[in-house]
Amino acid sequence: MFYKVDNGNITNPKGFKASGVSCGLKGEDKKDLALIVSDCIADVAAVFTTNVVKGHSLQVSMNNINNGKAKAIVINSGNANACNGEQGYEDALEMTRVVASELECVSGDVLVGSTGVIGFLLPMDKIIPGIKSAAKKLSYDGGHDAELAIMTTDKIAKEACVQFKVNDKTVTIGGIAKGSGMIHPNMATMIGVITTDANISAPLLDNALKKCVNKSFNRVTVDGDTSVCDKVIIMANGKAGNAEILDDTEEYKLFTEALEYVCKSLSKKIAKDGEGATKLIDVIVNNAVSPKCAKDIAFSVAKSPLVKTAIFGEDANWGRIITAAGYSGAQFDPQLVDIYIGDVKCCENGTALLFDEDKAKKQLMNDEVSIVIDLKSGDFSDHVWTCDFSYEYVEINGSYRS
Amino acid sequence: MFYKVDNGNITNPKGFKASGVSCGLKGEDKKDLALIVSDCIADVAAVFTTNVVKGHSLQVSMNNINNGKAKAIVINSGNANACNGEQGYEDALEMTRVVASELECVSGDVLVGSTGVIGFLLPMDKIIPGIKSAAKKLSYDGGHDAELAIMTTDKIAKEACVQFKVNDKTVTIGGIAKGSGMIHPNMATMIGVITTDANISAPLLDNALKKCVNKSFNRVTVDGDTSVCDKVIIMANGKAGNAEILDDTEEYKLFTEALEYVCKSLSKKIAKDGEGATKLIDVIVNNAVSPKCAKDIAFSVAKSPLVKTAIFGEDANWGRIITAAGYSGAQFDPQLVDIYIGDVKCCENGTALLFDEDKAKKQLMNDEVSIVIDLKSGDFSDHVWTCDFSYEYVEINGSYRS
Repeated sequence: MFYKVDNGNITNPKGFKASGVSCGLKGEDKKDLALIVSDCIADVAAVFTTNVVKGHSLQVSMNNINNGKAKAIVINSGNANACNGEQGYEDALEMTRVVASELECVSGDVLVGSTGVIGFLLPMDKIIPGIKSAAKKLSYDGGHDAELAIMTTDKIAKEACVQFKVNDKTVTIGGIAKGSGMIHPNMATMIGVITTDANISAPLLDNALKKCVNKSFNRVTVDGDTSVCDKVIIMANGKAGNAEILDDTEEYKLFTEALEYVCKSLSKKIAKDGEGATKLIDVIVNNAVSPKCAKDIAFSVAKSPLVKTAIFGEDANWGRIITAAGYSGAQFDPQLVDIYIGDVKCCENGTALLFDEDKAKKQLMNDEVSIVIDLKSGDFSDHVWTCDFSYEYVEINGSYRS
Repeated sequence: MFYKVDNGNITNPKGFKASGVSCGLKGEDKKDLALIVSDCIADVAAVFTTNVVKGHSLQVSMNNINNGKAKAIVINSGNANACNGEQGYEDALEMTRVVASELECVSGDVLVGSTGVIGFLLPMDKIIPGIKSAAKKLSYDGGHDAELAIMTTDKIAKEACVQFKVNDKTVTIGGIAKGSGMIHPNMATMIGVITTDANISAPLLDNALKKCVNKSFNRVTVDGDTSVCDKVIIMANGKAGNAEILDDTEEYKLFTEALEYVCKSLSKKIAKDGEGATKLIDVIVNNAVSPKCAKDIAFSVAKSPLVKTAIFGEDANWGRIITAAGYSGAQFDPQLVDIYIGDVKCCENGTALLFDEDKAKKQLMNDEVSIVIDLKSGDFSDHVWTCDFSYEYVEINGSYRS
């Protein structure tokens, strides 16, 4: 069993400090630089974007994580530090050096993240004083400030925290995330930082993280665009004092379940906060012949601009749902398919039903809408969270850079 | 050499009549039923949607085309006749029977198409009188009326026509198309009808059509949604009196070139008339290591909502272009990539350039915008036409069904 900690985040686990400051990247005194630090060197694991193009901060972090150890993570928002050539890579390295100098550790133990617009050099004359100021402001309840500092077009800050017992010791896992547009599995323009005071090795942490990310962050799509800077990092510093969590144990199972809850909770908040979103949509595929079939159909429907605009318009246009399923590339028998919007069955055996349009409309007026596609041909299920497509999405993205 | 025929369409080739009438499917006396008839039985070929879900009209047409012969095509807009179970199939068959009875031919020589909303039975009490009225109005210059009758959310009618000589005989190819939203390769919610008076066999017609569709209709994406009713049909009735066009001849080459021009011209009009579109975008990928690499990157960029909204906003946000290339699944070296918006180079060797923003903005204010991604690593090129993503796309698709 694990328990949700209300308003908890990355500084709830023991031995983690954080801060978030404004160094002038986003203007208007908005926080734009976050620092997260473990009191001791922590075991660390991460999942990085699969985009062929990789931001410079990500390149540096991928190197620095190789030994499975880290002490700090520095993240700026407002500038992705991507496609900036050698100077971009040098600037990312310099960020780790400045953090290391402030914390008196080695720069190889510092990870770095950047998120925002692509193709502009980092203004290091703002970043360096920013890091120094963030180091001064580190505190054991600075998690929320860090949360605010990593936001770009996000409207709500995203945090989650759980606790559970391992041999009478309380273990805490806390997380923060940012992400709103350019969101698609395999990491999107999404940054997640998770901390835990559990005593668990880096390889096991890596296993657990990969498993959980696949069920959570990799099941969210806002616009099908996967960015060059996405990452989820988890640090474990052992400060809970529990006996080490080992593979194939009840404790590991519990740890993974708790981590999965934190990841899912953050992911769902990302989908709900999709750029211009007015609704969270859960696309559920049941009774598919294979896991791949279920996944492909769920993503095809979740990505369809026609489905997403129909739901924005609160129109029970299930024809677009079956159409998107049909072009997903998955093989299935359309004559077996049932489709539900909320609990209103609109289509049975691939054929239109006379359903209660008013009832369907009412379901679509909710903040959270579920779409169920029952293939009735196998035992596999999957689901994807997405959001609707609104005027505001176009507005935000027609003028983001300028 | 072939020559463009201004304002030409499907009734320019000899021996083809057409008509377009209003039978009440779209309301407001809008034309919604088209009939296209060859004076004699014609050789015929078609390309159909790859969507697993197939509309009933499409199912019937796929059967009736098996022998490579047809005399007439009937198409209704305003209702897709899809997902309507056995009654849907029966209604599509009934449409062919009514046409056959009017034209005194066999129903197996009639093809049928339906486009519009999914999941509502065809109102046969409107369709049947509509077909009878269309049969009465058939004329050798009715192509434009047929064009209007197949439109759904289209704002402009789409036609193209060319002529060329085969052994002193003038051969004409004319085409019409509809399609605006739910447009993506492998046929989209797109219907194309092409007629020619050339003397050419059905198998050769089939080869030529597949080749040309792949370079034209299958290179257009509006929203990545492939519908259940898409088809391109070509009929050849031999009325030009030319000696039969045979495989591997100069005449066949010329025929294919002319057909490709017609297909490309119609495709480009579809992209330009994309729902809510304000601009036509040509995404060009050069110097890729393989045809697949070029194609995958071109489609990834052309489908990206972030690229499409940036171009709507006339913002030279090339970072989103390289990002979409990066997540296409194609392998390439980001450090070699150059990107141009119009003729403004924004990125060289994967690194931001200081470019003239005003000049780039001016290019983006044009009706037609080209994006060139030069991978500098091979000899293969491809391109995809798409359009920008506007407020109006959301408006049209948030309320289409209701």
